[in-house]
Amino acid sequence: MHQTRFFHIGGVPIGGEAPVTVQSMTNTDSRDAEATLAQVKELAAAGCDIVRLSIYDEECIKALPRIIAGSPVPLVADIHYRADLAVMAMECGIAKVRINPGNIGSADGVRKVASCAKTHHIPIRIGVNSGSIDKDILRRDGGVTARGMLDSALMHARLLENEGFHDIVLSLKASTVLTTVAAYRLAAAETDYPLHVGVTEAGLPGAGNIKSAVGIGSLLLDGIGNTVRVSLTGSPIPEAQAAIDILKAVGLRKDHVDVVSCPTCGRTGIDVAGIARRVESELSDIRIPLTVAVMGCVVNGPGEAREADIGIAGGGLSAAGGSAGGEGSSYGVGALFEKGKAPVKVEGDLAAILIARARELAKAKEEK
Amino acid sequence: MHQTRFFHIGGVPIGGEAPVTVQSMTNTDSRDAEATLAQVKELAAAGCDIVRLSIYDEECIKALPRIIAGSPVPLVADIHYRADLAVMAMECGIAKVRINPGNIGSADGVRKVASCAKTHHIPIRIGVNSGSIDKDILRRDGGVTARGMLDSALMHARLLENEGFHDIVLSLKASTVLTTVAAYRLAAAETDYPLHVGVTEAGLPGAGNIKSAVGIGSLLLDGIGNTVRVSLTGSPIPEAQAAIDILKAVGLRKDHVDVVSCPTCGRTGIDVAGIARRVESELSDIRIPLTVAVMGCVVNGPGEAREADIGIAGGGLSAAGGSAGGEGSSYGVGALFEKGKAPVKVEGDLAAILIARARELAKAKEEK
Repeated sequence: MHQTRFFHIGGVPIGGEAPVTVQSMTNTDSRDAEATLAQVKELAAAGCDIVRLSIYDEECIKALPRIIAGSPVPLVADIHYRADLAVMAMECGIAKVRINPGNIGSADGVRKVASCAKTHHIPIRIGVNSGSIDKDILRRDGGVTARGMLDSALMHARLLENEGFHDIVLSLKASTVLTTVAAYRLAAAETDYPLHVGVTEAGLPGAGNIKSAVGIGSLLLDGIGNTVRVSLTGSPIPEAQAAIDILKAVGLRKDHVDVVSCPTCGRTGIDVAGIARRVESELSDIRIPLTVAVMGCVVNGPGEAREADIGIAGGGLSAAGGSAGGEGSSYGVGALFEKGKAPVKVEGDLAAILIARARELAKAKEEK
Repeated sequence: MHQTRFFHIGGVPIGGEAPVTVQSMTNTDSRDAEATLAQVKELAAAGCDIVRLSIYDEECIKALPRIIAGSPVPLVADIHYRADLAVMAMECGIAKVRINPGNIGSADGVRKVASCAKTHHIPIRIGVNSGSIDKDILRRDGGVTARGMLDSALMHARLLENEGFHDIVLSLKASTVLTTVAAYRLAAAETDYPLHVGVTEAGLPGAGNIKSAVGIGSLLLDGIGNTVRVSLTGSPIPEAQAAIDILKAVGLRKDHVDVVSCPTCGRTGIDVAGIARRVESELSDIRIPLTVAVMGCVVNGPGEAREADIGIAGGGLSAAGGSAGGEGSSYGVGALFEKGKAPVKVEGDLAAILIARARELAKAKEEK
């Protein structure tokens, strides 16, 4: 577990023992307050704890107060090169700034940014991507390396540390998973700054989800990462769900129904996929941890779903081998099993039976 | 890197220095030779190197010769409890058997299976899921643990080792990523058997892909895993693509076009997603490693895509801040950049320009 400094981004804690949070970034024009605010709200509704937006000129600054006032979550200003924009964004009430101090151009600019951030208790994220490694370091290493990414980030950080500023978050996103994971592992070993974790330019949903899940997920499994961003090309909204699914996968989000369902095989006699989809969608409002299993057969079903709170297995209670091939319907005979109880034979709309009983269980658990 | 034994599953090598292979399993009724063979072929076309099928009775055995004869890939028989079915499947020419010797019921059965497998050079996979841990071990540990899963697998393995049989593959799939990863890490530390890696009952595509990518991907990143299975509820076909995407993400499959595309932000002036989708689909036939970048703007574009062989960035060569918000079209002005060359201004159908040039590059690389 990577031990880090602890501070707040607006009302959201980061680092220390704080939960890992989900971030995304708007792709509207930040000069357009209404469109940007609408997307910020959409991202918050999708599960983002923090939202970033690009602030690239004075027009964006003009739109900022309206966006900040309407946002349900803390906002981060993404700024390149210009210290004056960073100071203006902080004076507007932005909760965090992403800027690389080494690119601001002057020591005076760095001083102003650090001093303003200190006054307003606004953290700064230093974000080095595989493409923004310092030129001297790139030459030293002969190309993009994890070491070079971290050294670049630490070079930027030093400029802030020299001003007595330490509420720093680092990100080290490469476009390959291997370099990304190596860079964050180095950072976790060598610094105590909270880490914003992601794979940059992961690509389109599909392969991009997989890249992000491997990169972010493997770091989180090792206790590395304090806030995460899945970067997908296109609408940012699916990024939130993908990030939440990664947090669920590594056990960092438990307040939901986890559907465990078998891949089906020649023994399957019921519509496992259809039942699992109904369970997933009809129980999506439940906010306590509950594992619900949908298994194709009673041969392995109840056994394989041992960790589930409740589950259903197709095909009655006979332990004989399979019979029907492929997939059947939601109507039929099944075995309903609950933790610590003997399985019970059920008949009818298996999905409805399972969902109703799972909801009762959730209610009972909630009342405890 | 986990050092393992090396042998073959039919013509496909496993373990040692062999490449990591992709597996899936049919969900047709294995008694139905035509339907099963059709799905085996579909899985092979989708990229599966090895396909498993459930063999649960004598009717399945009858269908087996026809399926084996028509299959373009080695097949694995998934068998529970019955040594006689395992022996019959091996005599039909199956390339591998998945069976847990401790559940066969008799020492004589184990002897027959081991002897037949030895004669025909057929490896055996021992597959312990979180639900099939030995009852005594489950009691010892008070529940499902990674240790318990491995100990159960080793108990089964010992029965084969006692017969002088060592062409063993182990799998230790739990339905949670945490237990899965912990179990395989233990196995890699303590045994030299090749490992078949997967998260069992990962659920529906979407969250199931994410669970599998985190679990399988993080193990592969650490050099653990010799063959992989993504288990998704529903059709097995998408499992192959998900598995291949995981292998690509960790750098184990490189013979393809890797599309690196930015998540777009307020600076984006071109249709990044549309161009990326066209690049991905129109260049999907290329079988050499080529990284193609699609970036929204020239501010970060070429720099962030430094590792790409070729790429395009929207908005011409001016390095000014963003202008248009949201997404535009594929037609417009952009900067085409290639490794080691100065960017060139291009105008027109940016996707078509990029695709044509990438294809030329691929051809030149191939001819080298």
